[in-house]
Amino acid sequence: MLHISESDAFDLYSMDEALAVVEAATREYGLGDATMPSKIYLEIPGQTGDFRAMPAYCKQLNVAGVKWVNSHPDNQHLNLPTVRAWILLNDPATAAPLALIDGTRITSMRTGAVGGIAAKYLSRPHSHRVGFVGAGVQAYYQAMAICKVRPVTEIRIYDLSRESQLRFSRQVREFFNGKLVECDTVSACIKDVDIVVTSTPSRSPLVELAWVAPGTHINAIGADAPGKQELDPMILVKGRIVVDDVAQASHSGEINVPLHNKVLSKHKVQLSIADVVSGQKKGRLSRNQITIFDSTGLGVHDIASAGYIYRKALDTQIGTQIVD
Amino acid sequence: MLHISESDAFDLYSMDEALAVVEAATREYGLGDATMPSKIYLEIPGQTGDFRAMPAYCKQLNVAGVKWVNSHPDNQHLNLPTVRAWILLNDPATAAPLALIDGTRITSMRTGAVGGIAAKYLSRPHSHRVGFVGAGVQAYYQAMAICKVRPVTEIRIYDLSRESQLRFSRQVREFFNGKLVECDTVSACIKDVDIVVTSTPSRSPLVELAWVAPGTHINAIGADAPGKQELDPMILVKGRIVVDDVAQASHSGEINVPLHNKVLSKHKVQLSIADVVSGQKKGRLSRNQITIFDSTGLGVHDIASAGYIYRKALDTQIGTQIVD
Repeated sequence: MLHISESDAFDLYSMDEALAVVEAATREYGLGDATMPSKIYLEIPGQTGDFRAMPAYCKQLNVAGVKWVNSHPDNQHLNLPTVRAWILLNDPATAAPLALIDGTRITSMRTGAVGGIAAKYLSRPHSHRVGFVGAGVQAYYQAMAICKVRPVTEIRIYDLSRESQLRFSRQVREFFNGKLVECDTVSACIKDVDIVVTSTPSRSPLVELAWVAPGTHINAIGADAPGKQELDPMILVKGRIVVDDVAQASHSGEINVPLHNKVLSKHKVQLSIADVVSGQKKGRLSRNQITIFDSTGLGVHDIASAGYIYRKALDTQIGTQIVD
Repeated sequence: MLHISESDAFDLYSMDEALAVVEAATREYGLGDATMPSKIYLEIPGQTGDFRAMPAYCKQLNVAGVKWVNSHPDNQHLNLPTVRAWILLNDPATAAPLALIDGTRITSMRTGAVGGIAAKYLSRPHSHRVGFVGAGVQAYYQAMAICKVRPVTEIRIYDLSRESQLRFSRQVREFFNGKLVECDTVSACIKDVDIVVTSTPSRSPLVELAWVAPGTHINAIGADAPGKQELDPMILVKGRIVVDDVAQASHSGEINVPLHNKVLSKHKVQLSIADVVSGQKKGRLSRNQITIFDSTGLGVHDIASAGYIYRKALDTQIGTQIVD
């Protein structure tokens, strides 16, 4: 079994590669050639951290595997990472173990990449202004991916933490030379932009319908557990919702609270990015429509990414063998 | 992260230890101090093999983790193991990675051990004759565990394969000096025994009610996927059913087919071994009652076992570090 560390995975997986792998895996998932059950959550009684198990199979890369990932928000007070992940990869036909891969980098990259793919398929082609609500690690990866698929000339950033805002601005400068605006309010951040990305841990709506211009595309990234939400539910009611996975999004995505409260009906949340990318259904229906991509994180994106990295590691002789 | 190989795990975990760990974890699970979601299955389209992800948390051993295990029956034709498993173990509070442990030995041992615990709590105390229907690897572990908890003087074995029967007899001689009877029929194997163990991959009943003596305890081990069953459903209707986990057993245990066919009602399958071991409910209600333990495999037993082995490996400086 090959062990691929986080730094090896970092070296082996660029955003261009992640965009290609995630787009192909999304198409495969739409066609039924990549499969996964809904992720399951392990709660720790009396503690705030949890763990999630995400198995998947990808035909094209010929890999099966599981990602095991945690969410421990209190770790920030201990100066420890709040999210880490590990991926076990197997031969689907015989279950022979292929690799143990640190999945932390993969998780960030594939989440960014699917945001890029959503922007590519759902935002208007000439989208050039992007507003980021929340300046955490994932905002950076979303920005990197979106700049690859759209002619971005202006990035706006809002965060409660001035420190996070500054760090985001500094990091985005690695790949972005356009106008960078640090905003004091959410409304200023998203006024008249083409694309909005929300990536906060919020449990109540931050973005109001009145602030969202017609034709905006929104990547709603933050909600990943029951009770979380970032958008005014009326944005969802009025817009066209595209989920990454119907079951997962209904359980823990942006749509989970309004579905639970019956503000949204089930028939509004049946369209998936895989339906769109595989060409089976239409994404945006008109220039002025608001589109919302609800991202909860797909095991097929993790396992496809891990499979790609594993094959590249073999080719380039990176990684160390774990002797059984 | 410590890597513990299958042979290290073998050396670190005896059946006496497994019985103690599994009994304690079962009690914890009954009291809500050990937790797990139902396992999830990853199917591979067009192939017979599958994978399962089984996360769990155990308070006493202070570990969280996931077992990733496959079932590839066709591997036997390739001379490869049909079941292998890997366990990732973490600190529950911070998610810090503790170990990658080969879970193949653990899976066999904890399945045997929970069969022993079921026999300890559900069979009549003086049970001394045990009939095994199916002579695969798991029959051996069941025999090892049951001989630890009951004064066994006679073991009978039935299997379609003469070769498997002979191997079982040879292996059981490692720990059993009593009467060993190789049977030509299922009815001869279980006539007037005190305990029956079924551990076959059957999809239709092998054991008829008429052959089962009053007061028998049955460990139904084989059924672990929808459509599998080993017992005449009337045994379940007539007997007292104790499951390892209500949700898992209803989905894929011995009770899944009769529940699906409505031969069994849901209220008959609500009693768990954790309820019994934790003293919250009674197991056997009378000397002549038939009791059935429906085993599907609990993540809490895997993770408790892995946690025990990990601590022992640290104490004895066994295993190798995986450098991140």
